[in-house]
Parts: sequence; C-alpha cells; structure tokens
Amino acid sequence: MYYIGIDLGGTHIAAGIVDDTGSILAKAETPTLVERPYQEVIADMAVCVRQAADNAGVSLTEACSIGIGIPGVADNSTGYVIFCTNLGWTDIPLRDELQKHIDLPIYIDNDATVAGFAESVAGVSKGSASSVFLTLGTGVGAGIIIDGRPWTGAHGVASEIGHLTMVAGGIPCTCGKDGCVERYCSATALIRMAKEACEKHPDCDILKRVGGDQGCISARTVIDSAKEGDALSLQIFDTYTEYLALAVNIIISFLDPEMIVLGGGVSHAGEFLLNAVREKVPGFLMYKALPYGAIELAQLGNEAGIIGAAMVGKINL
Amino acid sequence: MYYIGIDLGGTHIAAGIVDDTGSILAKAETPTLVERPYQEVIADMAVCVRQAADNAGVSLTEACSIGIGIPGVADNSTGYVIFCTNLGWTDIPLRDELQKHIDLPIYIDNDATVAGFAESVAGVSKGSASSVFLTLGTGVGAGIIIDGRPWTGAHGVASEIGHLTMVAGGIPCTCGKDGCVERYCSATALIRMAKEACEKHPDCDILKRVGGDQGCISARTVIDSAKEGDALSLQIFDTYTEYLALAVNIIISFLDPEMIVLGGGVSHAGEFLLNAVREKVPGFLMYKALPYGAIELAQLGNEAGIIGAAMVGKINL
Repeated sequence: MYYIGIDLGGTHIAAGIVDDTGSILAKAETPTLVERPYQEVIADMAVCVRQAADNAGVSLTEACSIGIGIPGVADNSTGYVIFCTNLGWTDIPLRDELQKHIDLPIYIDNDATVAGFAESVAGVSKGSASSVFLTLGTGVGAGIIIDGRPWTGAHGVASEIGHLTMVAGGIPCTCGKDGCVERYCSATALIRMAKEACEKHPDCDILKRVGGDQGCISARTVIDSAKEGDALSLQIFDTYTEYLALAVNIIISFLDPEMIVLGGGVSHAGEFLLNAVREKVPGFLMYKALPYGAIELAQLGNEAGIIGAAMVGKINL
Repeated sequence: MYYIGIDLGGTHIAAGIVDDTGSILAKAETPTLVERPYQEVIADMAVCVRQAADNAGVSLTEACSIGIGIPGVADNSTGYVIFCTNLGWTDIPLRDELQKHIDLPIYIDNDATVAGFAESVAGVSKGSASSVFLTLGTGVGAGIIIDGRPWTGAHGVASEIGHLTMVAGGIPCTCGKDGCVERYCSATALIRMAKEACEKHPDCDILKRVGGDQGCISARTVIDSAKEGDALSLQIFDTYTEYLALAVNIIISFLDPEMIVLGGGVSHAGEFLLNAVREKVPGFLMYKALPYGAIELAQLGNEAGIIGAAMVGKINL
C-alpha cells in the first residue's frame, strides 16, 4: 500500500507517493500562489497528488491516506488549519475541502513536526524512540517525537521551540514576545549578526563577497567566509553557535531526547556547524557528567516534508 | 494490593503505604542525617517502610513494589542515584542497597516528577493525559506527564525546567549557567527581589514584618504584604509573576500540555498567585487565539512525594 504526503509551503505545493518504508516513489510540484482563494490552492493540491500518482504509475485506490505538512498550526480533530502566517490562512477547513477532490483519510500536521518524524522513520534518527528536530531557516521550527510518534500537544500547538523565551527582554520577535530562540538561532539571526558586524567593519570579507550590498548577505555568505578562516566571520559564527548550543541545551534540560537533529538552511554548513555545536553544548550542562542525546545533522533535506506527512497518515490509520 | 512510596529528602525520609487509587493508608518519618554513609541512610529508609506498614496494619508481603522520589537524577535501568546535591550523593547504588533490606521491585525517580505524577493520578490533574508540574521552592523542580506516564527522558534527566535558560546572560545559577528559570521563578528568587527592593526602601513594609532583619524575609513575607495591598510588595510580586508567566509560556510553547500545575512553597499563595499568572500568560502567547492548557494549583501538598513514588512503582510493574 502507498501513502500520500503533501508539503504545503508558502511558495510551492509538493506531493509524493510514499511506500511503507518512507521511500518516495514519485513526486509532483506546483506553485502555491497564496493570494488566491484557499479553495483554488486546495484544488491544486489535489491536482498535484494525481500527478504524483501518475508519475509513480500507481492508482489512488492503492493509497491509504493523505498526510499534509503545513507551515503553521492545525487541529487534527477538526481538520482545520488554525493559523498559518505564510499562507495568510486562519480557520481554513483544509480536510473537508480536499476531501471534495480526493476521498481518503486526511491528517494535517506542522511542517517541522512531519520533517522531524520523517527523520525518525527514514532518516538520521531512524530507530530512536525520542528525538527533537530543529529547522534553522527563516525562522526556527521544531518537531518532537516521543515513543516513536510525533508529539503535537493537547491542542496541536506544541514544539514551537523557536518561540521559547531564551533572552528575556531581548530582540523583539515577530510573534510579539522578546528574545525568542528564533531571533538568535535562525538563518535570519545569523544574517542580522553579520549585518551588525558589517556596519562596524565596512571593509570586511563578508561585504566583499556580496559586492558591498548588505541586502545580499545570506547565511551561506557568513558560513563560507568562516569556513575559509575569516576572523570576523568566525567570530559571528561563534556567537551564533553559542546561542544554538544554548537552545540545544534547553531541549536537553526539558525533554532529554535520544537525539537532537539539526536541519534547515543553516544545517547545510554540515560538520562545520555540527562540530561547533557539539563542542559548546557540554559547557551548558547542569553538571559535567550529565548524559545527553546525540546531536546530528538531518539527512532527508526537502524530501522530509513529503515523507513525514505521508508517514503521519500511516501511523494515524 | 499496596504500593510503598518513599520521599527521600535532604532533611527527612518519609515512607507511606498507598493503595491502588493513590490514597495513603499510613506513613512514617525519620530524619535523613545526610552526613552519614549512604548505607545507613538507606537502612533507615527500610526501617521507615516497616514502620509505615506497621502503622497501616499491613504486611510487607502484601506490597507490590517500592517507589522512591529523590531530589536529584536517577538511572532507573541501573537503580543508581546519578547525582543528588542535597544528599551529597553521586553514583549511589540505591536499589541494590535497599533490596538488601526489603526484597521488592524498586523504582527511583526525581521528586518533582513523582509529585507531578501523583497530581495526575490523585490530584488536580487527575484524568489529564498530559501535564507539567512545577514546584516553586528553594529551586524550581518539574515533572512531565505524557500519555498518562511520567516522562523522564532517554537518560532520566528530563524535566529540568528550572534550568532552562530564560534570560541569557542573566543572573548566575548554582548549576553554572546564567539566567536559568530557577533564578527568576523560585521562592529564592522572590526573596532576592524583595531584598533588592529593601535595600532601596529601608522603611518598607516587608522589612517591618521581619523586624528589620533581611535574613528573615521569606516568600510568605512578600506574599502576605502584597495580599494586604502594600505597593512595593505588589510591585515585587508583579515582577515575579511576570517571569513565572514567561516560564509557563515556555512550557506551553514547547509541550502544549493539557494542564500546568503549580506546587511548592510559593503556590501556598493560592488564588492570589494563580490569578496573577493566569492574567499574564495570554500576553506571552504566540497569537491571541492560541489554545492552551489549564493552569491550576497542586492539591496534594507534601503527600504528593509518597503517593507519586508509590504510583511510579505501580505503573512500572
């Protein structure tokens, strides 16, 4: 049997046909075009699913379920999207609307949660009973896996680790609070740190890499420069990974999972990031000999969204 | 059948005989006298258990298990106490040593975890599938209940919510980090805030209540003064509950439990505390309509330690 996974993003809808083991047989993609009425976006999700099935050479009658990862908060009991900034959606009947097009059981979950679940089914945290997945992108998303299942909380709003207060009274966050993890550990935070440094060092390597245009600085600009040994970039990267190690430590102190998985844009820095975080975490432990989970890089990349969504469907059947 | 619960504290050992429903039939207590060799402390735990059984008029042959709540970190797989500041214990074979005296299955867990579990079996969070319990005492302890069971993590070191970094670069903590939740939300923190205020206001109500002796200020001093409407005490209490609401918000954002339970010394402030926290939490939510768990006061008081320890034995059988 097959499971359908849909990764509903702010710019693209991606659907895939996934087998029991979490392997994608075929995919299809289409632009989200969020400014449209939600009914049209959801109609295109159905088109995308049929296209993926065609590409895989399977019939939808062979599929058991549809899982959807959304960049926001959903209520699985009602099938509504409660809140989704990137899509501009509030209280959207996603399940009911999609079922008008495809009559299959539909499960909806947060995109970081499904990506974390994908890693625990078919990626780096495969075989672990508990793990926490962090996406270090524009924001910081997270997925919590407990006893082999995604933990989404009593109201479906758990694992918002990006919005834990880590620096009370710190940098204002888009969520309205101050000093959230996201403001210090996202790619956006790394870029902010770089821009602040560039103001003070107008002849720095980072600015040279972007032709003097601060607006072109990406996480990769800083990481590439740091990897090549530029002192200022190394200093920025050091500050960034210090905060990231602090966030990892919060996860250890709160949940003590078997594994903590780093994904998202910044994680493309690879071992360079991993080594820095692994080196700094012990300095934040409650006591020196405290045992804690492995810290690893995500393995599935963008496919985690489809795989995880499909697998959420599978475990809920 | 009966279950034995032991609350092993830095000053007292308390043992109780508990029935299936989490009711204590009888108790016994003895001083811990931590400066002794651990073998003697553990021998007295056994004496205390036999005394409790005598008091209940039951035989130890009718007991199924012993659960022990310790003020530190234990490894249930080995039965060792890994680390316990109050007792000065590191790597102590608690299970093996106690089994020399009483041959029953023995389970060890953190005292805040067992107290939280007690509340979920026989207290305020009874019937909830997930809850987080906070003890607001000398430090801040916590217990996490997920799917009706205590969650102690992959290495038994979870739920150290008192040591989450909430104010990076903030007040140094006894654990070696800076700005931990405990430094802002414990009774100790409330007392610190009061002392700082007294320095600036030597004629304040708080100092009058303790005859001018700052060393006599307790959490209760501040709370009593605030309850009676003293402006300075209200201001201190407002700052304290602001931080506590922030910590509660961290729990909501991370785990989204059905209920958050406030226990420990500061919780004796009752509705006065509860109302303040409930009023402030919505201001920290990610978005206004975010659903979140009930915030309640613990109901079982000191007996939670014995009840929870006994019930940990029961669920592990």
